[in-house]
Amino acid sequence: MGAHEDVTTGPIDTAAVDTAHLEELLLGRWAETRRTAREVLKDPVFHKVENQTKEDQRERTFKQCHALVEAKAVHRAFPEEFGGDNDNGANIAAFEELVTADPSLQIKAGVQWGLFGAAVLHLGSREHQQQWLPGIMDLSVPGAYAMTEFGHGSDVAALGTTATYDPETEEFLIHTPFTAATKRYLGNAALHATAAVVFAQLITRGVNHGVHCFYMQIRDESGSPLPGITINDDGHKGGLNGVDNGQLSFDQVRVPRTHLLNRYGDVAADGTYTSPITSPGRRFFTMLGTLVQGRVSLSGAAVAASKLALIGAVTYGNQRRQFHAASSTEEEVLLDYQLHQRRLIPRLAKTVALSFAQEKLLGKLDEVFSGADDSDENRQELETLAAAVKPVATWHGLDMLQEAREACGGAGFISANRFTSLRADLDVYVTFEGDNNVLLQLVAKRLLADYAAEFKNADVGALASYVANQAGDRIMHRFGLRRALQGVRDTGNERRSANWFKQTAVQHDLLADRVRQMVADVAAQLRPVAKLPSAQQAKVFNDHQYEIINTAKAHAELLLWEAFTEGLESVQDAGTRQVLTWLRDVYALTTIEETLDWYLVNGRISAQRARTLSPYINRLVARLRPHAQDIVDSFGYGPEHVRMEVASGAEAERQHEAIEHYRALRASSAAPVEEKTLLERQRAAAKRP
Amino acid sequence: MGAHEDVTTGPIDTAAVDTAHLEELLLGRWAETRRTAREVLKDPVFHKVENQTKEDQRERTFKQCHALVEAKAVHRAFPEEFGGDNDNGANIAAFEELVTADPSLQIKAGVQWGLFGAAVLHLGSREHQQQWLPGIMDLSVPGAYAMTEFGHGSDVAALGTTATYDPETEEFLIHTPFTAATKRYLGNAALHATAAVVFAQLITRGVNHGVHCFYMQIRDESGSPLPGITINDDGHKGGLNGVDNGQLSFDQVRVPRTHLLNRYGDVAADGTYTSPITSPGRRFFTMLGTLVQGRVSLSGAAVAASKLALIGAVTYGNQRRQFHAASSTEEEVLLDYQLHQRRLIPRLAKTVALSFAQEKLLGKLDEVFSGADDSDENRQELETLAAAVKPVATWHGLDMLQEAREACGGAGFISANRFTSLRADLDVYVTFEGDNNVLLQLVAKRLLADYAAEFKNADVGALASYVANQAGDRIMHRFGLRRALQGVRDTGNERRSANWFKQTAVQHDLLADRVRQMVADVAAQLRPVAKLPSAQQAKVFNDHQYEIINTAKAHAELLLWEAFTEGLESVQDAGTRQVLTWLRDVYALTTIEETLDWYLVNGRISAQRARTLSPYINRLVARLRPHAQDIVDSFGYGPEHVRMEVASGAEAERQHEAIEHYRALRASSAAPVEEKTLLERQRAAAKRP
Repeated sequence: MGAHEDVTTGPIDTAAVDTAHLEELLLGRWAETRRTAREVLKDPVFHKVENQTKEDQRERTFKQCHALVEAKAVHRAFPEEFGGDNDNGANIAAFEELVTADPSLQIKAGVQWGLFGAAVLHLGSREHQQQWLPGIMDLSVPGAYAMTEFGHGSDVAALGTTATYDPETEEFLIHTPFTAATKRYLGNAALHATAAVVFAQLITRGVNHGVHCFYMQIRDESGSPLPGITINDDGHKGGLNGVDNGQLSFDQVRVPRTHLLNRYGDVAADGTYTSPITSPGRRFFTMLGTLVQGRVSLSGAAVAASKLALIGAVTYGNQRRQFHAASSTEEEVLLDYQLHQRRLIPRLAKTVALSFAQEKLLGKLDEVFSGADDSDENRQELETLAAAVKPVATWHGLDMLQEAREACGGAGFISANRFTSLRADLDVYVTFEGDNNVLLQLVAKRLLADYAAEFKNADVGALASYVANQAGDRIMHRFGLRRALQGVRDTGNERRSANWFKQTAVQHDLLADRVRQMVADVAAQLRPVAKLPSAQQAKVFNDHQYEIINTAKAHAELLLWEAFTEGLESVQDAGTRQVLTWLRDVYALTTIEETLDWYLVNGRISAQRARTLSPYINRLVARLRPHAQDIVDSFGYGPEHVRMEVASGAEAERQHEAIEHYRALRASSAAPVEEKTLLERQRAAAKRP
Repeated sequence: MGAHEDVTTGPIDTAAVDTAHLEELLLGRWAETRRTAREVLKDPVFHKVENQTKEDQRERTFKQCHALVEAKAVHRAFPEEFGGDNDNGANIAAFEELVTADPSLQIKAGVQWGLFGAAVLHLGSREHQQQWLPGIMDLSVPGAYAMTEFGHGSDVAALGTTATYDPETEEFLIHTPFTAATKRYLGNAALHATAAVVFAQLITRGVNHGVHCFYMQIRDESGSPLPGITINDDGHKGGLNGVDNGQLSFDQVRVPRTHLLNRYGDVAADGTYTSPITSPGRRFFTMLGTLVQGRVSLSGAAVAASKLALIGAVTYGNQRRQFHAASSTEEEVLLDYQLHQRRLIPRLAKTVALSFAQEKLLGKLDEVFSGADDSDENRQELETLAAAVKPVATWHGLDMLQEAREACGGAGFISANRFTSLRADLDVYVTFEGDNNVLLQLVAKRLLADYAAEFKNADVGALASYVANQAGDRIMHRFGLRRALQGVRDTGNERRSANWFKQTAVQHDLLADRVRQMVADVAAQLRPVAKLPSAQQAKVFNDHQYEIINTAKAHAELLLWEAFTEGLESVQDAGTRQVLTWLRDVYALTTIEETLDWYLVNGRISAQRARTLSPYINRLVARLRPHAQDIVDSFGYGPEHVRMEVASGAEAERQHEAIEHYRALRASSAAPVEEKTLLERQRAAAKRP
């Protein structure tokens, strides 16, 4: 412990961020790739231009995509034989950085290489790859990823488009049987795509084998839709207007049998269906498995955008002054206000937690896609992890951008400061590539399945003892005895309470215990109906859906905390570790604070301790305040990435000029006297005898 | 009680919304004005067009403003002698509705008639009014309201621009002494304004009399800035790009003495300053008093936009289907999902609460501005009420638009559905015309002042007894005894608990008690430093700023609840009253749920009761679900106001077509069999002997 020490938080004197060290840590395993990507993106050709019509923006974004090809920035995931690097983790790491240049560019690139190209790569045969990947990679064949329909987004299995095999001609008939089956929101479709991968129900010999993917030409050389294909424009959007989203519908359009991307399911010339995966359900999820890359990318992009927002808001918060409080001549710097600290520091903590969680997620993705461990189990773990982190990251991105924009006042609303522009573009990240709430429901189902599996194998004795413990707990809770006992021991001494809250083990137990208990509570409600007809099961499940989603959120928060804590362990520099530990504590404690009622109701935290939590957090954010600039500086972005007037130092210059003006004025004889001061003097003079 | 009754909520059979009755109730006192305004705004000329550059949008908005003049839609607040109606409440009511057409139009109109015009009206002399109001009213003189500067927004008293009187020429010299004193974000300034009202420190005879307002010509006939005036464009913004915000700076620009708007402060030819208000502080707040109209308008606009968002999301939620759950052939309607109910119904409740609160606020504004009661006390009440409601309403507007947009998935992101467009435009409502957090701090200060005043007059005995009660309370809380006792009595019986929560008196006590206790807690922290130097006072105040802001929020929530409950009392129809009572309960209980930890820590709600709260809310939102469409239909907006594809009924048609398609297919011999079904049949056949 240092010589100077705060009673509750630890040594203060030694706390200091080694920004180079922290930058390296946050850049993570793919640091070199990120640096290379960031270097490329310094070029203004990639930067979003504001105040364009969607027509102009689309053209510009398309040109930017070509520039990415020239800069060799988008081929990392493709096999070496086609000129790629076969490096999946690096690919996503670089892709995440695109958001700093222009989110439209990111999404248009994602459609071309991450969805359209990845479908051919992962679902096609070697012949398919040889035939189509070169044109996809060099963008001579722009393509759409035609999955979503008017009537079905998240529920891909229920798509309406059909692909019916005709053995006479050895062709599939791609068809849109009703309006709701029209493909919608397809990037590249409105203007640029000449081809598409189309998802449709594969029907052959009278059997529907479920959703499969077909490669199709959709426009001719002149850019007109091919016969039987109708293309419409989705029109102007809330953001991402550089992406030309459009609609596709098909009137019995014939495609060759060999255009079925047939890695997981094939149709022979005579119409016989075969698949290496027997279960239709497992086959479906395997085919959709590549979608996880999109989720991981969006999550990472949201973290990068959150970092930009913090750089802007923290820098401005350190320069802008408002209201006199402590001094009559000098105004307060925004970040000295407690409320401003409360608005920005916990969000800084969550951003860093997400940065570490994203790094873990990326590692897991690389493990699966590189083949280092692509077992079903690991693939499922990746899916669940992505389904947990993507919602938290993308919602946090919007919240972070909004709070940063509000924290900069009117300046935050000016497009030159980018907050509103980034927020508008990132808005759809919370509902596409898996709607956040649907993903959270997947997470919860996995948690419940794991829980059920645990009990399936448990012997009767263990189960009985578990139930007894639960019952005991419940009685304790019912009569408030456990809390009352805590109350007597726990007199709300702030120091003792803070010492408790700051323990890593305590934070872990609080966060983990909440997830466990919530899962157990939900499972207890669902168990009695497990044997009932599905309609009744569905009703009971629905009656607990809100609780179920909250359980998944609690799980995601635990994951973030674990990633942050693991990240901390690799910090060598003591000063940096101290600051990051406080920041991790802020993440843990504000997360607990948000659901403090649960901890109280469930007897995990006594009312006395709960009372000390908010004041302790207030002290922690004040302690972190002097380090906020160093932390955001460690994000490693240069002015070419940030591009915000609020982060340029212009405000500091303006404040300096104003302060100097008033200082010179006070020193001169020209300074007017305030009417208020004059009145006070007159009053004082009148009182004198 | 009805024949059919839910154990916890009341009669179900009789609950039904009389939409015409509810519409009338929600239209409120200025129903006729609102109807007239809405009729005018059906004209497409007023409707926002998406995908315009700011240049095109600005021109269009300017033309729309001229069309408003022609439609006689913007003169209600002006005196009858100038062709107005002298009707302040009606003026704001009509102004609120503009947001349904185009928020840029609303704000540009607000700048011209609500700020520029109102400054001349309220701060100028009769001569000023006669000279300038006609040109302002008919828009032949577009003007800017030059208050905000780079360096000062919320802290108007500290503006840097100076107006120094020169008795030699009987002119004021308007001057920008340093960059941070440059006027910024001024609507109309970038392009259209030929004049401006400029706020500057009035200095005469060596004394600074504080901020006063001056009428100035800023552009010549050709549109060029007058000598000494520099005008810059604020550029593209996150929204409201129909408003040409710009910057003004002055280099010793001379304006005639008579251009000082001199109602509250005047300078004689020889430089003598006079004012009908002796205190410079009171004079300042009186001059700024007209700003409250802007706050009330924005609050009302946010409520109107929230209603549009709900119309879109609820209608779509009632038509769109997703995932099979209870049936294998029919998918679930979105609004049947508990989570969807939890996302929309509490926000519906808060919107209705705000609608009633806005009506009260408008009544108070009319009282003050009509002169029916323009006492200092009532004016302060209006200020405090507006400062409480505006933050809650504008933040809710953004939250409501965002949740509605997400609840509509990808469709929510398409500009044709307006959620993102409205959200982008309304974003700045939370920080302009008084930053929300600054306004909440004003509310808190008023609460603390009232509390202090109460104790100043209390006799010693009363104070002692109060302190004793507090001490008793604290001991009870510390040892958890009160809660433990509640625990024994309160076994968490859900029905008994629900019966408690639904009582109006219980809800009131919970919400009001929280405000009272929080004020007392903060006051107790601040009292010991009341005599210390201001720097130390400022520190202690800052150490509690977060708590102080939360206190103001709690107060605002109580105000909303009170307005809703008052509104309920005027409902004649029993069925409507039942539904609205549930909705009021949802508002109260979700508000309590959000800060449930406070109620637990402070012993106001036992853990047993707290445990039943969330399930009870879940039941309430399910109960309200069938009435959601009726409630949003009662908002009284026509398709010309809503203009959203999701609310058009197109989704219902698409769903119907899809359902019919599958029905016909199942009935035909052409239906393919599912592979899964086939496999099940094969397995079953294999088992047969």
